[in-house]
Amino acid sequence: MAKQTNRAWTLAARPRGVPKLSDFALVESPVPEPGPGEVLIATHYHSLDPYMRGRMNPPTPAAYAAPVPEGGVLEADAVGEVIASNSDLFAVGDYAMGKIGWQEYGVMDARDVRKIDPAVAPISTSVGILGMPGLTAYHGLFEVGKPVAGDTVVVTAASGAVGAVVGQLAKHNGCRVIGVAGSREKCGYVVDELGFDAAIDYKAEDVPARLRELCPHGINVYWDNVGGPVTDAAIDQIAIFGRAVICGQIAFYNATSPPQGPRNIPRMLLTRRARMEGFLVFQFTGKHEEALRRLAGWVQDGTLKYREDVVEGIENSPEAFIGLLAGANFGKLVVKVH
Amino acid sequence: MAKQTNRAWTLAARPRGVPKLSDFALVESPVPEPGPGEVLIATHYHSLDPYMRGRMNPPTPAAYAAPVPEGGVLEADAVGEVIASNSDLFAVGDYAMGKIGWQEYGVMDARDVRKIDPAVAPISTSVGILGMPGLTAYHGLFEVGKPVAGDTVVVTAASGAVGAVVGQLAKHNGCRVIGVAGSREKCGYVVDELGFDAAIDYKAEDVPARLRELCPHGINVYWDNVGGPVTDAAIDQIAIFGRAVICGQIAFYNATSPPQGPRNIPRMLLTRRARMEGFLVFQFTGKHEEALRRLAGWVQDGTLKYREDVVEGIENSPEAFIGLLAGANFGKLVVKVH
Repeated sequence: MAKQTNRAWTLAARPRGVPKLSDFALVESPVPEPGPGEVLIATHYHSLDPYMRGRMNPPTPAAYAAPVPEGGVLEADAVGEVIASNSDLFAVGDYAMGKIGWQEYGVMDARDVRKIDPAVAPISTSVGILGMPGLTAYHGLFEVGKPVAGDTVVVTAASGAVGAVVGQLAKHNGCRVIGVAGSREKCGYVVDELGFDAAIDYKAEDVPARLRELCPHGINVYWDNVGGPVTDAAIDQIAIFGRAVICGQIAFYNATSPPQGPRNIPRMLLTRRARMEGFLVFQFTGKHEEALRRLAGWVQDGTLKYREDVVEGIENSPEAFIGLLAGANFGKLVVKVH
Repeated sequence: MAKQTNRAWTLAARPRGVPKLSDFALVESPVPEPGPGEVLIATHYHSLDPYMRGRMNPPTPAAYAAPVPEGGVLEADAVGEVIASNSDLFAVGDYAMGKIGWQEYGVMDARDVRKIDPAVAPISTSVGILGMPGLTAYHGLFEVGKPVAGDTVVVTAASGAVGAVVGQLAKHNGCRVIGVAGSREKCGYVVDELGFDAAIDYKAEDVPARLRELCPHGINVYWDNVGGPVTDAAIDQIAIFGRAVICGQIAFYNATSPPQGPRNIPRMLLTRRARMEGFLVFQFTGKHEEALRRLAGWVQDGTLKYREDVVEGIENSPEAFIGLLAGANFGKLVVKVH
């Protein structure tokens, strides 16, 4: 074993609004021993995703997942190397991913982790395009958005872990794709590297005007990662029989009071006979295997490109996460741990 | 012919906000003669429905139907007796319904009207439970709401032309049904006469608290005829995998500026994996015949009850319509013309 101490980020205090560094505490403890049927994994990468903000809130009956307890290790998918195994399913030296959290080492039931083949793609992709974010894009687009060749698809957070995959899958499905992103560089990337047809810099451009200009026949599929004024503008431009896929609402994750805005959604859905639908990736668990096989094939043949924003060192996880909620990352955000 | 003059309500001015009586003008003209293939119908009943408010607005590219031109006869389904026929499809004395409008007589292409059998039900039902409102309820509930026995269904404008049918169809489909209506009498009617399980008087009760109390496991199907705060409260209580059917937004039909409110819809749809979908009855035209056959059978065997609010005399149409938008009617509003 490389060292005898495990460092883990725990929830020191439930954030009010934007998380502060003092809401997180890096605690040390001995590296745990795997019990029967368990494996010990040395984390190479842990993921940072916007959904984690919700897990930091107090428990409510309405929450779809239990929050991280105060003092508990923060939740994350992570991937690393098996360094001790009490299971026939894994040998030392195998790569494995699972809900290890923001920590250097994790003991997991071998049935709760997935073996990762480093020959398919870099193992970091197992928490990105070949993990939860890629599955979110695939299932949300095909099961909820139901794109048809010729559709105009608008994707928010277009250079992010999910949006970049959604847009490329929609292109591969014969759609016209417009990205919305938060800088000129991100807009350039989704058009020049990922092959989107156009992009809108929501921080610099008039989003409603640009959507009207770029989507003169309306938006057939609107992929919502953000909520707020961008979503209002997209719904005002939704096509007849359009579909708004609600995947994220990052504009509100740090909100401390109920946000207000125009009541345009039911009115536009009515006259346009359109649909807005929310989903969570785990409702499609039964289709993960097929989705991962396809996504891996498309990564390998170059159909799908991806970009990672790698933060070095677990000591930087909280700062990176706070930046993620403000759009500071560029591509799938992961923390390199070992 | 009973008389030689036709009186018709025309749009004198496009209403700003709540329509005024001076926005309507009753004009007299000679009773028209039917041309080849046409029939002359003496109106017995013309319908008044909330959607007509939209037809009074200025034309916009986004409208789903052309507005009534200024000076044009106001649009409505109406039913009456054929008093002259130049078509093999209709004999004098037949009953027929079609888009005759707010007027005493109408000449219609015989192919554009539907023959009504007065032995099935009173002919007034052809503009109500056995007409557009009944079809709206049937298609919207079964095609969009997709109720399953055991679901909790919340219906707004519950004693109205559409809501009363939605609630009874949902009961017949094995659901638990909660009505929302605007008086104690209307609430009593939907529970005592129509068999709803409970009702909420939105003018006198705390709607969010009552919905939480009556729908402890969430709302599986929310039928929205109204929009506004009642809809906000229902969406806050939507069940996992719930469906919000957007049929009407009467709270806003007289609005002169974009209404504002909480941005709760995408957030609740996301975490609850729920769907909100708008529809217009004509998108299901291919299924009207089957729906009407079933609705007629259920009216005849007593499964479906209905209540009409009959206004006597075409001179009262505008006042009755203005009242409709404020919820003054009790049951399907029709004007008795002849």
